[in-house]
Amino acid sequence: MITVLAGGVGAARLLRALGAVVEPTELTAVINVGDDLVLHGLTICPDVDTVTYTLAGLNDEARGWGLTGESWRVMDELAALGGEAWFRLGDRDLATHLYRSQRLAEGATKTEVTAEIARARGVAATLLPASDDPVATTLETLEGPMAFQEYFVRRRHEVRVTAVSVTGVATARPGPDVLGAIERAERVVVAPSNPLLSIDPILALGGVREALARRGDVVAVSPLVGGAALKGPADRLMRELGLEASAAGVAAHYGELVATWVIDEIDAGLAGRIEAAGHEVRVTTTVMDDPARARALAEAVLS
Amino acid sequence: MITVLAGGVGAARLLRALGAVVEPTELTAVINVGDDLVLHGLTICPDVDTVTYTLAGLNDEARGWGLTGESWRVMDELAALGGEAWFRLGDRDLATHLYRSQRLAEGATKTEVTAEIARARGVAATLLPASDDPVATTLETLEGPMAFQEYFVRRRHEVRVTAVSVTGVATARPGPDVLGAIERAERVVVAPSNPLLSIDPILALGGVREALARRGDVVAVSPLVGGAALKGPADRLMRELGLEASAAGVAAHYGELVATWVIDEIDAGLAGRIEAAGHEVRVTTTVMDDPARARALAEAVLS
Repeated sequence: MITVLAGGVGAARLLRALGAVVEPTELTAVINVGDDLVLHGLTICPDVDTVTYTLAGLNDEARGWGLTGESWRVMDELAALGGEAWFRLGDRDLATHLYRSQRLAEGATKTEVTAEIARARGVAATLLPASDDPVATTLETLEGPMAFQEYFVRRRHEVRVTAVSVTGVATARPGPDVLGAIERAERVVVAPSNPLLSIDPILALGGVREALARRGDVVAVSPLVGGAALKGPADRLMRELGLEASAAGVAAHYGELVATWVIDEIDAGLAGRIEAAGHEVRVTTTVMDDPARARALAEAVLS
Repeated sequence: MITVLAGGVGAARLLRALGAVVEPTELTAVINVGDDLVLHGLTICPDVDTVTYTLAGLNDEARGWGLTGESWRVMDELAALGGEAWFRLGDRDLATHLYRSQRLAEGATKTEVTAEIARARGVAATLLPASDDPVATTLETLEGPMAFQEYFVRRRHEVRVTAVSVTGVATARPGPDVLGAIERAERVVVAPSNPLLSIDPILALGGVREALARRGDVVAVSPLVGGAALKGPADRLMRELGLEASAAGVAAHYGELVATWVIDEIDAGLAGRIEAAGHEVRVTTTVMDDPARARALAEAVLS
């Protein structure tokens, strides 16, 4: 059994790559919910949905997010009504949010709903929202506090951030199977997701850091390659918060929680520094831009 | 100024017909909200939407409900997910519910949201939800209590009803302009809507009956023609509740609230009984199946 701490696109690709090397039923993803939002009355879980769609083979690779064969009738009509249309919800994607919102209103948990949707989509891996309780990643910016998707989508992460906090995390509990999935796994992997926005909100949940620390064998894949994020604002955000925007900077940020780092060949020169800080390092290709390279990364993570 | 107490399709047609005889800006509709529901996290106001779409010229005449040029991508996908797809929400229609749900979450009232949507759709009449407070028409049936749309749509009103009640109506207030619209109008018209399911929930709001009674000149169009409803279960429901399913039965049900009845030519034989009960009666065509007949009815209502 392999458990992966996951954000969105990068984690989804790693999970897909791992699923080509081991049985998908052996995979468990603990997925960030700090980016969840309620919009138009709908509860939307972007990271959970990205992982679900990708593992179902339904993600739109060209667009980089959302579902294949998507259409935009509802959004076009909503824009014509003068509604909030900055968070693009496709017609197929909306069905997910309607389903989830109805089931939550009926008393189901996010964990239960996520499992139902995964089953309906034919996903064999176990997908666990990091928490069933409301947590919300919030950014302190030069323009004041900003909700995650406001920063990430509406403002295209082009506003300067001074701090990141996770509202609700002090009282939120990890999802019912989350700690067990970390404790029982043969291997725990931190996906190449944004450390500050995707992984930290999982680590902040009571007991998660402790469960990872007790293992002492966590493997992480660097989300920064040559000092840059493949997608999203991780590098910029790290700099804004006074961290080094590099694989070594990410390693320093997670510190002792991670035993083994998997970094990209382009960052081979950083291996010595990361090793000197007490980590093992494996150097391989980390850019999953074709199945062979994705498989090589999956094998490095599992070796 | 003309104020119409309105349910869905029948009322929408009367309002459209009236709008061809007087300036649409002279029309105010006080619209039932007892059939409103929250489904998939969305607040849906079927009667308000039917009136809005019809007055905007966007209603699908052939289907008899919903919008023209509608598509069903979200519903098809929701059904594939195993979601609740019995209440058919088209893609264009969904934009209305997303818009409303977001605005309500932001603190707007149903009255405000209805005005915003009407404006965006180019509707010149004033559309007033009967109340901004939650009221819900509930049916006691042989199978136990049932929410309105559960009865009306899911069960296609094919379950026997023993009583109708309106949850929340004891504390709900009429919308902010409702009593004024009744008091100030030159003419108040009760639309040919279901008396028990569409009009009674409006009448049950505190002050509405009193405002109508003070006028003493209310005109009503019979929703029953030849003892049958043109659409929906009004006739059956009246029989189930021990009322006479005829124009005379409806007149007896409203009693003194209505001064003048407009009944169909087919029911001319009932005019004597209705007059004997103290009402004026006008006999005309009440079936608005073409513009000329609709205009004739509108003129009879206003004469």
